[in-house]
Amino acid sequence: MSLPNPGDTKRTEINRLKQRSVSDRDAMYEILDSTILCHIGYVEDGQPFVLPYAFTRDGDRILIHGSSGARFMRQLAKGAPTCITVTKLDGLVVARTTFDSSMNYRSVVILGTAEEITGDNKNELLEKVSDGLIPGRTLEVRKSTVKELAATTLLSISLAEASVKIRTGMPHDDEGSGTGVWSGVIPIHLVADQPIPSDDESKSLPVPESVIAFTKNPKG
Amino acid sequence: MSLPNPGDTKRTEINRLKQRSVSDRDAMYEILDSTILCHIGYVEDGQPFVLPYAFTRDGDRILIHGSSGARFMRQLAKGAPTCITVTKLDGLVVARTTFDSSMNYRSVVILGTAEEITGDNKNELLEKVSDGLIPGRTLEVRKSTVKELAATTLLSISLAEASVKIRTGMPHDDEGSGTGVWSGVIPIHLVADQPIPSDDESKSLPVPESVIAFTKNPKG
Repeated sequence: MSLPNPGDTKRTEINRLKQRSVSDRDAMYEILDSTILCHIGYVEDGQPFVLPYAFTRDGDRILIHGSSGARFMRQLAKGAPTCITVTKLDGLVVARTTFDSSMNYRSVVILGTAEEITGDNKNELLEKVSDGLIPGRTLEVRKSTVKELAATTLLSISLAEASVKIRTGMPHDDEGSGTGVWSGVIPIHLVADQPIPSDDESKSLPVPESVIAFTKNPKG
Repeated sequence: MSLPNPGDTKRTEINRLKQRSVSDRDAMYEILDSTILCHIGYVEDGQPFVLPYAFTRDGDRILIHGSSGARFMRQLAKGAPTCITVTKLDGLVVARTTFDSSMNYRSVVILGTAEEITGDNKNELLEKVSDGLIPGRTLEVRKSTVKELAATTLLSISLAEASVKIRTGMPHDDEGSGTGVWSGVIPIHLVADQPIPSDDESKSLPVPESVIAFTKNPKG
């Protein structure tokens, strides 16, 4: 059974700036697959908390891992309602007025509850998370130990209820915005610098392929 | 009366990875002042929502502006508890094991409720928001109109209850992580590309000083 498309459920329908709403599943995947950082919201005693985490997409779900000791992870594992938001800032939209100025961005907002993954496939899926962040890295390091696996909580959140918003292109300057005023876009993007080895042993070794590949095509 | 330092209230005390907790107010300002994008959490019927917004710091508060028509802004203006999180991803920490791998980042988590600014100083503070995003821009464009001001909601959130976390430096590789394995850090940072003029008029004009300054020192 296929999932609803982005924006296709009652809670994810976009009412403001509908023209920025995107229902294309591939557009959602593209945003998620080119990003590392998400912001996860949860509620405790009516107070929202928003925390930054790394994530990886696995098909139609998001995988998050963290310390088993983290209160936040335990709350999510218990099924607390959550919202996971991924935002890529692509540029500043510099209009002829501050009112029309804006940002170019792509964002995904996912609503749902987390499920903890504890079965035989936990190790395999944790490797998927690591390889999602730095593709190929798990082949360059030793396997996780039983102790390391136990110290890590792995959560999945379905992409069944998500919305996607994209703003792209030039400012929409109105008449009366003033003549003789420059308007346009300042594109911004992430770059990776030269990798820095941690110690003498690393200095003596070639930079691994996974690290070289990441620096050529960094995610943030 | 001075505000509590970051991490100095019961709800903002950091229990996990305490070594990353920072109580230095200037460190908090530095993170906030070099960033445009925040993620704002609020709760509706027990469901958290997390949305990306631009923000500017003004002394010991954060200013957020948005459309008066946005449901989200109205909820915040009514005093719904909120959490505003600002995260800068500075690099990937590539350890000798996936378990010890991490991210270098700086984050600020602010708890509180918003106050709507409606008084005589609304215009001045909205200009502060615009100049916070692109310093000097308000001097290059016309003043906002009464209609534009009415269509914009301006909110402030105090920095009285905030926590700051910073992870920096190299991986902490344990013994038993494996020999012959490279470890280190991949630094990442934002860059701005050449500004793109929106139309023939903009092509004929010099790129404004505010835009040139931003491209040399971009925020994201």
